[in-house]
Amino acid sequence: MLKSDNSQCCVDPANLERQLRRFLPQHCLLVGEEDLRPYECDGLTAYRELPLAVCLPETEAQVIDILRTCHRLGVPVVARGAGTGLSGGAMPHAQGIVLSLARFNRILRIDRLARLAVVQPGVRNLAVSEAAAPFGLYYAPDPSSQIACTLGGNVAENSGGVHCLKYGLTVHNVLRIRVVSIEGEVFEIGSEAPDAPGYDLLALMIGSEGMLGVVTEVTVRLIPKPELAQVVMASFADVARAGDAVAAIIAAGIIPAGLEMMDKAATAAVEPFVKAGYDLAAEAILLCESDGTPEEVAEEIARVTGVLSAAGASEIRVSQSEAERLRFWAGRKAAFPAVGRITPDYYCMDGTIPRKRLAEMLSAIAVMEKKYGLRCANVFHAGDGNLHPLIMYDASQPGNWQRAEAFGAEILELSVALGGSITGEHGVGIEKINQMCVQYATPEIEAFHRIKAAFDERGLLNPGKAVPSLHRCAEYGRMHVHRGDLKFPELERF
Amino acid sequence: MLKSDNSQCCVDPANLERQLRRFLPQHCLLVGEEDLRPYECDGLTAYRELPLAVCLPETEAQVIDILRTCHRLGVPVVARGAGTGLSGGAMPHAQGIVLSLARFNRILRIDRLARLAVVQPGVRNLAVSEAAAPFGLYYAPDPSSQIACTLGGNVAENSGGVHCLKYGLTVHNVLRIRVVSIEGEVFEIGSEAPDAPGYDLLALMIGSEGMLGVVTEVTVRLIPKPELAQVVMASFADVARAGDAVAAIIAAGIIPAGLEMMDKAATAAVEPFVKAGYDLAAEAILLCESDGTPEEVAEEIARVTGVLSAAGASEIRVSQSEAERLRFWAGRKAAFPAVGRITPDYYCMDGTIPRKRLAEMLSAIAVMEKKYGLRCANVFHAGDGNLHPLIMYDASQPGNWQRAEAFGAEILELSVALGGSITGEHGVGIEKINQMCVQYATPEIEAFHRIKAAFDERGLLNPGKAVPSLHRCAEYGRMHVHRGDLKFPELERF
Repeated sequence: MLKSDNSQCCVDPANLERQLRRFLPQHCLLVGEEDLRPYECDGLTAYRELPLAVCLPETEAQVIDILRTCHRLGVPVVARGAGTGLSGGAMPHAQGIVLSLARFNRILRIDRLARLAVVQPGVRNLAVSEAAAPFGLYYAPDPSSQIACTLGGNVAENSGGVHCLKYGLTVHNVLRIRVVSIEGEVFEIGSEAPDAPGYDLLALMIGSEGMLGVVTEVTVRLIPKPELAQVVMASFADVARAGDAVAAIIAAGIIPAGLEMMDKAATAAVEPFVKAGYDLAAEAILLCESDGTPEEVAEEIARVTGVLSAAGASEIRVSQSEAERLRFWAGRKAAFPAVGRITPDYYCMDGTIPRKRLAEMLSAIAVMEKKYGLRCANVFHAGDGNLHPLIMYDASQPGNWQRAEAFGAEILELSVALGGSITGEHGVGIEKINQMCVQYATPEIEAFHRIKAAFDERGLLNPGKAVPSLHRCAEYGRMHVHRGDLKFPELERF
Repeated sequence: MLKSDNSQCCVDPANLERQLRRFLPQHCLLVGEEDLRPYECDGLTAYRELPLAVCLPETEAQVIDILRTCHRLGVPVVARGAGTGLSGGAMPHAQGIVLSLARFNRILRIDRLARLAVVQPGVRNLAVSEAAAPFGLYYAPDPSSQIACTLGGNVAENSGGVHCLKYGLTVHNVLRIRVVSIEGEVFEIGSEAPDAPGYDLLALMIGSEGMLGVVTEVTVRLIPKPELAQVVMASFADVARAGDAVAAIIAAGIIPAGLEMMDKAATAAVEPFVKAGYDLAAEAILLCESDGTPEEVAEEIARVTGVLSAAGASEIRVSQSEAERLRFWAGRKAAFPAVGRITPDYYCMDGTIPRKRLAEMLSAIAVMEKKYGLRCANVFHAGDGNLHPLIMYDASQPGNWQRAEAFGAEILELSVALGGSITGEHGVGIEKINQMCVQYATPEIEAFHRIKAAFDERGLLNPGKAVPSLHRCAEYGRMHVHRGDLKFPELERF
């Protein structure tokens, strides 16, 4: 099913290696199976593939030569950052190379006055904030994987994080990028000044999942570290009420720095692991962060607690120290590994829905748990309606993964039906490529293909990812109706 | 010089009219010269052209039929909102039609809870905020022309306004658009939920100056009206110091709701006209708005006045009532017409530069005033480095317009040299098409052309605007060097 739509045929691996060795030093090219193995998948470990080779260039000139060579030989290229992506965007192509940007790991410049940093794409997300800290600045988007994930990967997936409700996704925090095309041409898009003339290629590239070009430099906006941040933690006796409280906070005109929700399954997994102090009696908890000057924070916290009380919170606590604030967040940030401790495998979804439909979605997921015979812990970036249901399964049990996948697909398709989208911040990759057929009609899919062709006519950059072929959508349409009738053998038992 | 790069030839006007009449009622099609005359230009009145016809469709089905007809016959199509644009983006094509969206003037839906409005493209910018006011909401981007300009035009130009420093440009406030392609295909891009999968076509369309498709519906984000807003007005004895004060406010981590600068030439033009209470002794004044809860405003105003004092402001006043706040702004908002009262003609530029270069730019403009023998009043969206120098000239004097145009071009090209861009919010249109050759190198221009071809292969949508041909850039390069040597006859006298 996940065979590439545009798979290339008949690359001569020996010739490819010979061509690459012409300009790549020994330590920049991996071809042995044991060396390739670590690159066989990204964070979506359910799908694996060995590439023909892994290139680890150290200079932009080498990136250009690699791309020109692959273009000439018709070899697919999958760019890769830290490989923490959750949608399989960096899964290798069996007939192609992986182009790792791991050695592009230098912070080139921090401009304190203009409040920006120029970094190479292999720089880790958190490293930018660490480097900016002496100036009282930081880089706002903070995916949970920020210790490991890189800016290049963030650009490819338009990553978000807990704080993107207030501070925006990657696309709102990148000022300029330098990109190499598949033909080896370098272009720079964006500007340090606001706006840039011409079509918005910067936004087009951000979130394009390595399918339009390879980024070799990123200029990001830095923002001042707030003087103070505090978190309100509220307990709710039912999840629907917690969902409505989220909508009420936003409707009151408050844009918190973060607004997260965890259900009982999630807090039960987290608390023994992290000891964050979560209310285990609650059916759901909300974490609502306020940041700014002490006056701003005090004023906003007062309003938030007012709204939460009115919305029926059974308990409300406000962090009284930075240590307590970090402890409250530690549980949320460790939710994925914590769930990983109580189940052999889990599958993290990433739909978004309008906030007012949160309660509805949670009820529907409860029904799906019974339907598919699998548990689900719910961890949401609730403030912007971004869901991360964690479907627990056991890959060693036959049919278990297929059920998890069908469960996930149903969540995504319900997200679309509720007026939302199939991804908030993890990208489409290979994971949600079928659901693109649910999200979009033929004219939009065709527009995506025309854009792709404008940058990569032969379809060599990350083939088979993010944008389905119309043929695939036609096939999926048939299968989909089929599934609606519950004719899938692995589902018949439920 | 402004002849279209892709001008079409040989349209048969009689046949075009016959084809359009098949589906357009009498009152939706103008062909008589007296009816066409009002459409000969937009806000860039220096360039005029009569189209073959003006279509005023009332339904999306008619828009589709118009575009299909033009596509079939090879007729250029220039979409038009209110015609307030300042860069000539809606200037007609002599061999084409103007497609006016003036009758798409209905607000379709306001969702108070989701905080969004669905409107037709001919709805006026201010009308959205007026319709949202009963719910305590408004639409943030506020171009000075907001009484007249339309949402469709705002989308085409990615319009800004005084408040876009804090609340973003149009691209940051539009959630979804419905677009008809030149082939008559309808697609919807964006989502009410945050982010949407696939390439960011929404951002690509916004600011594309009617060259990729025709928008028939716009969904915008509404935000809560702040409880309070106050303006600080500060006087400075020299412009360089005022420029540095702007950089200091932003460097202090303050993002005001608006941060505007006017030099003495501008305040001198405005004050007799508006009686805003500006300090006419000052070489420059800053207007800095704070909005939010009363506590937030009080705290921010205190910090702003602290920074302004430290930066050497000679006088600081804070608006003490809503009436006074509106009066302070009235002067700024009326700056363009006020300058229009003291000069037969003026030419408004729109470059952006990094904030820290404001002082440098102002000195350079003073030198250019002497070089070109023309006065210039400076009105800046200083907070985001967006310049609106108003070059005063007299079109009835031979060579005067050419000098104004050369003056403007020099400002734009200096903007690029200072690390900025040639447009902040007015678009490229025909006005800055040569400067695109200064802003970008060949690979970027080529990428723009490939994007254009992906949506409009025959180049029928707004031909000759926004993106220059490589041929034009080559020609301009030659002319440009020439100009550098001051060989232009009309400049030799200075």
